[in-house]
Amino acid sequence: MKIAIGQLNYHIGNFEKNLQSMLQATATAKEQGADIILFGELAVTGYPPRDFLQFEDFIERCQFVVKELAKAAQGIAIVVGAPTVNPVIEGKDLYNSAYFLADGEVLHVQHKALLPTYDIFDEYRYFEPASTFEVVEYKGKRIALSICEDIWNVGNENPMYTICPLDKLKEQYPDFILNLSASPFDCKHAQDRIDTVRANVERYQIPLFYANHVGAQTEIIFDGGSIVMSPDGKVYDEMPYFQELVKTYDLDAVLKGGIHQVQPKEKISLIHDALVVGIQNYFGKLGLKKAILGLSGGIDSAVVAVLAQRALGAENVRCILMPSQFSSDHSIQDARQLAQNLNIQYDLIEIEPMYKAYELALRPHFAGTHFDVTEENIQARIRGMLLMSFSNKFGAILLNTSNKSEAAVGYGTLYGDMAGGLSVIADVYKTDVYALANYMNKDGEVLPQNIITKPPSAELRPDQLDSDSLPDYDILDEILYQYIEKMKGPKALVKQGFDAKLVERILKMVDRNEFKRAQMAPALRVSSKAFGMGRRIPIVGKYLS
Amino acid sequence: MKIAIGQLNYHIGNFEKNLQSMLQATATAKEQGADIILFGELAVTGYPPRDFLQFEDFIERCQFVVKELAKAAQGIAIVVGAPTVNPVIEGKDLYNSAYFLADGEVLHVQHKALLPTYDIFDEYRYFEPASTFEVVEYKGKRIALSICEDIWNVGNENPMYTICPLDKLKEQYPDFILNLSASPFDCKHAQDRIDTVRANVERYQIPLFYANHVGAQTEIIFDGGSIVMSPDGKVYDEMPYFQELVKTYDLDAVLKGGIHQVQPKEKISLIHDALVVGIQNYFGKLGLKKAILGLSGGIDSAVVAVLAQRALGAENVRCILMPSQFSSDHSIQDARQLAQNLNIQYDLIEIEPMYKAYELALRPHFAGTHFDVTEENIQARIRGMLLMSFSNKFGAILLNTSNKSEAAVGYGTLYGDMAGGLSVIADVYKTDVYALANYMNKDGEVLPQNIITKPPSAELRPDQLDSDSLPDYDILDEILYQYIEKMKGPKALVKQGFDAKLVERILKMVDRNEFKRAQMAPALRVSSKAFGMGRRIPIVGKYLS
Repeated sequence: MKIAIGQLNYHIGNFEKNLQSMLQATATAKEQGADIILFGELAVTGYPPRDFLQFEDFIERCQFVVKELAKAAQGIAIVVGAPTVNPVIEGKDLYNSAYFLADGEVLHVQHKALLPTYDIFDEYRYFEPASTFEVVEYKGKRIALSICEDIWNVGNENPMYTICPLDKLKEQYPDFILNLSASPFDCKHAQDRIDTVRANVERYQIPLFYANHVGAQTEIIFDGGSIVMSPDGKVYDEMPYFQELVKTYDLDAVLKGGIHQVQPKEKISLIHDALVVGIQNYFGKLGLKKAILGLSGGIDSAVVAVLAQRALGAENVRCILMPSQFSSDHSIQDARQLAQNLNIQYDLIEIEPMYKAYELALRPHFAGTHFDVTEENIQARIRGMLLMSFSNKFGAILLNTSNKSEAAVGYGTLYGDMAGGLSVIADVYKTDVYALANYMNKDGEVLPQNIITKPPSAELRPDQLDSDSLPDYDILDEILYQYIEKMKGPKALVKQGFDAKLVERILKMVDRNEFKRAQMAPALRVSSKAFGMGRRIPIVGKYLS
Repeated sequence: MKIAIGQLNYHIGNFEKNLQSMLQATATAKEQGADIILFGELAVTGYPPRDFLQFEDFIERCQFVVKELAKAAQGIAIVVGAPTVNPVIEGKDLYNSAYFLADGEVLHVQHKALLPTYDIFDEYRYFEPASTFEVVEYKGKRIALSICEDIWNVGNENPMYTICPLDKLKEQYPDFILNLSASPFDCKHAQDRIDTVRANVERYQIPLFYANHVGAQTEIIFDGGSIVMSPDGKVYDEMPYFQELVKTYDLDAVLKGGIHQVQPKEKISLIHDALVVGIQNYFGKLGLKKAILGLSGGIDSAVVAVLAQRALGAENVRCILMPSQFSSDHSIQDARQLAQNLNIQYDLIEIEPMYKAYELALRPHFAGTHFDVTEENIQARIRGMLLMSFSNKFGAILLNTSNKSEAAVGYGTLYGDMAGGLSVIADVYKTDVYALANYMNKDGEVLPQNIITKPPSAELRPDQLDSDSLPDYDILDEILYQYIEKMKGPKALVKQGFDAKLVERILKMVDRNEFKRAQMAPALRVSSKAFGMGRRIPIVGKYLS
């Protein structure tokens, strides 16, 4: 028997596109001699469909796609994820299901039992967990179907769950396991997946075929890396990251095993590729091509410019340099040099005339006050506004260049440098932004070296440096990481050896700036805990602030 | 026996304040001769605490408050909601619990069984459902404790749930039921609550005491309206809306019944009061006093100005009039008149000098293009920026004045008229904004009549009217209501008799503008489905757009 994995890039709610992709992948798999093709979890809808699931029309269209795929399941079986209406009145309205389609019909449906409801996941909002488990027989093989999280409670050792679907399916002597996943990228997650697949294979001693999504849905990025594992616990194949691919595997060869093929997992390289895909798919799925961004001469906007050029092509990226009286000469030179290195269009607009117009208009109302954060913000907002004007006039999406460290502590201006349709690096700590910059320069200077080496500054008042108001990024980022990703509170952080006053100061800054992040553009998610839908903090909350 | 209800305004994560409020209420109840005082669900933390629940320190502080309250439970029992650590490894880490504190100790803990995970609710993200149910005995009475949703599955008829906690407690012959709630306001919800309490009372034939929160937590508003119901199914008392109150009831009198006292439930009046409380609490809980807003002379900003003045006092509200060449004379006059009626400070700033500065700076880059939405947005953004400058300079929060109809169809400018810290009326359809305006004028002209009667216009180009690009608000709002609140898709709407093309056009506008709403300030929630945390729609989704 031959089993194909279709590692595809779905688009939420774009039923026509998802159907066509799967039909084409099915044809390819047939050419490759496959008996079965395996797609991802909720492949019909794209993941996560969120509240679209609550519309009747939406579910009807899902069922239409399943029927069309069933028709195409001739000479090949198609295994695909789609929602199912729960026929029982009690419980949630839907199941999250795996459809086994063969000979033009639905041969079997297995629902998902373990419904992640943490971080970005809200599955219990929509789905009833499966209560029955049955293997499906096809061409003389007994096949266990599982959906994503279903394999993440090996031997019931995951404290979140109380049942282990595969323990139940095992009682029916399956020959192998298929898993339909929608497992989002984070920079350390690929190894977790392999370890989890291995734990299952070691427990059940049968091969496991694991199909993931690729591509991004707004902030959520899927990296693919679908896995085929032999009973010997070796990765028979790990499919490439961030690429659509249809690949067919011979079951006998997989059973024999002894082969070990994995993808490289260097963190910064993965983040780089994920962000490029994130940009590409945000534009592609919205039907847009052109990006605009402000180049300050600093490292954040420089890194975003490189990512944008790589994602969209030099011809689709335009930069605006908007110096003020506080901008240093080298900043403008560095920005200009970068734009030239990238071969992207750039324009220069001095913000002083606008600044003066505001100053004059506000002077009678601001009499007796001094230059403060107001005037700093005016500069940032003039830039945001000029960029949005280019965005509106030319149909280009403004890319936001805030990094995670500054988004965390609120070191940014709402409607100014926080403006944009997509936050490209707002899940990348400043220290990793430097690492990204160095990575980009590994085969020759793309970013002028001065952009990497000079001390970071917002350049909104004379001789301003980030270090005036923030601790060193090395320390700041470590505290932020422990607080945000690891959810360690102040007591735990002090126990880890961080200075108590510094911890208090930083955590308060994070909490107090929830109101800013509530209005931040969606941030491409590359960590296990990104700002946005995966981190839900009350704005008026007073826990630490 | 005498039972007090403490209907209080908690503050999320403000443990000191919540503890002090409850201690004071307990003292009041003792003075009133109460044997028991009942507080709300998760009263210790405020509701909803969201991901704060994932921090160890946060849970420790909850337990500290419970201990302090237990100490105060001398001569009176205190019933209070707080999270409990689940001692079992399997399952979620916490329970959502009711603590019965008496004689300085925890006499009983009952966990919540029915965990709402829909709309704004994410309880299954944090909590394990209760599996055991026990009444508590106190002073010779057997008391059934229930938490909010626990009473919303009467006789297992709610399709969302499969168990009915009170059916289980009933087997232990309770004398009465206590319910700790955190039931958010929407303009039709108070009657639902009474009906639900009645259904329980009719089923169990014993009194029910229902304690709700009051006050707002960012966008979520609690209206109170705590209920005491006699076994005869009559509302013995419905406590006032939007007010803190401690009130003690004699159990014998409640048992005897025959009394029916409810609060008036006029929709527009309730929305008005809810919005005033929403503004007050947003400012109060953030420790701020002053608001700023732009007055255009249109009805939306006028209504928000009135609400702000009523919430914060005339001395804390400041308005800026920012006319352009496209502003009509009557707009400025109307705005001025309104500010005078409200006795609030207003300033006038012509935006033309800024507009000209932008035009000049952009001219070389925009050569060959015409006046379009770009230039309209520039005007709106200059206003947003001026307002934010006042906000920064004087520590005043900018109130956003977008209504729900325009937020739905994207009729607004990001970083322009969509700017602000709090969206006051973004959950109020335009037709209800008119109703609010008329309600405000019921005892004499507050809003100049011309603001209500003139045709709505954004005044961003010559002779512009909302009706140029939008259908009549009567029709628009009805379609939006069916799509947003009732979650009816296009098929269902056409079946209801709406024009198919109009439905398609409007629904596409709603879906396409998800990216704008993703950056909208939190919107005070007054309907059963508000934009924000209760409505989760993918930005790149292509279901209808």
